[in-house]
Amino acid sequence: MTHTIRERRKLLARVRRIRGQVAAIEHALDSEAGCESVMQLIAGVRGAIAGLMAEVVEDHVRTHLVDAERHPGALDGEATEQLLAVVRTYLK
Amino acid sequence: MTHTIRERRKLLARVRRIRGQVAAIEHALDSEAGCESVMQLIAGVRGAIAGLMAEVVEDHVRTHLVDAERHPGALDGEATEQLLAVVRTYLK
Amino acid sequence: MTHTIRERRKLLARVRRIRGQVAAIEHALDSEAGCESVMQLIAGVRGAIAGLMAEVVEDHVRTHLVDAERHPGALDGEATEQLLAVVRTYLK
Amino acid sequence: MTHTIRERRKLLARVRRIRGQVAAIEHALDSEAGCESVMQLIAGVRGAIAGLMAEVVEDHVRTHLVDAERHPGALDGEATEQLLAVVRTYLK
Repeated sequence: MTHTIRERRKLLARVRRIRGQVAAIEHALDSEAGCESVMQLIAGVRGAIAGLMAEVVEDHVRTHLVDAERHPGALDGEATEQLLAVVRTYLK
Repeated sequence: MTHTIRERRKLLARVRRIRGQVAAIEHALDSEAGCESVMQLIAGVRGAIAGLMAEVVEDHVRTHLVDAERHPGALDGEATEQLLAVVRTYLK
Repeated sequence: MTHTIRERRKLLARVRRIRGQVAAIEHALDSEAGCESVMQLIAGVRGAIAGLMAEVVEDHVRTHLVDAERHPGALDGEATEQLLAVVRTYLK
Repeated sequence: MTHTIRERRKLLARVRRIRGQVAAIEHALDSEAGCESVMQLIAGVRGAIAGLMAEVVEDHVRTHLVDAERHPGALDGEATEQLLAVVRTYLK
């Protein structure tokens, strides 16, 4: 029940970008950047973390809620999309 | 695919409480209450709305993602709990 | 230190709209509307409550953090805008 | 209008912890950890980022909204605490 390699690569690319964004906050604090830049950088990481969570949750819903091999077609497509729309709204 | 009567009653009770809380904000503004009370009342409605959404989403996940009559046992219990734990964290 | 009448009117108009939106959720549950409509209506109230809170917070910052009669010009305009930009991001 | 050295050290310590938490997400994805662990690690970073933002915003409000040397005593202590209480509620 693990992620496909392709999905994992996409997630890893996201996490590496976030690592760079966190390093930028550290650099901004080290170089005594103003509050405004620091707050903008933090808001950027927050958005990126939300995007990462939305992607992992979506993947979890599509892949793990139903074992598609044992129960093919059991996951209702429309209800799944409705759920993911709410998840995205709240993870923005 | 509608909610059971019992579940609907619980949701209606929540919505009616929220209606009362919104009326309290209106009353506070009308009676020129201070910013602090108004902000606390609004924060209360926000929490209650989040709780309502969490309950509807949970109900949606448990009832609608899989048609349990056609696909009994297809919804993975553990994966469902993991999803709902994340939903509750974000809807707090 | 209360709000101006004009500001209070704007806030009251917002609260009344929210009251109508909450009534719509109640109606949707009463008429056995689907989960999707209910979740969309709840998400709408959540956004409206966030907008109301942003407006009250903005008003609070501009009016109450500094008594402008006793300390004219003491509230830094640029720093205030930076703060309110963060508040709006988080209250979205 | 920069932060004091002591405040900056506290913020840097927080950012370094977050950097470690992001590295843990990367490691979890690399080692094919389950969705649940990954979602919990992401939720942890989200909370830590919210805590960091709350601290920077608090610092910004206390230090930059009013130039305390030119306008001593102009920032209203009670109104400031009310604002920060709302900020903390929303940044949780």
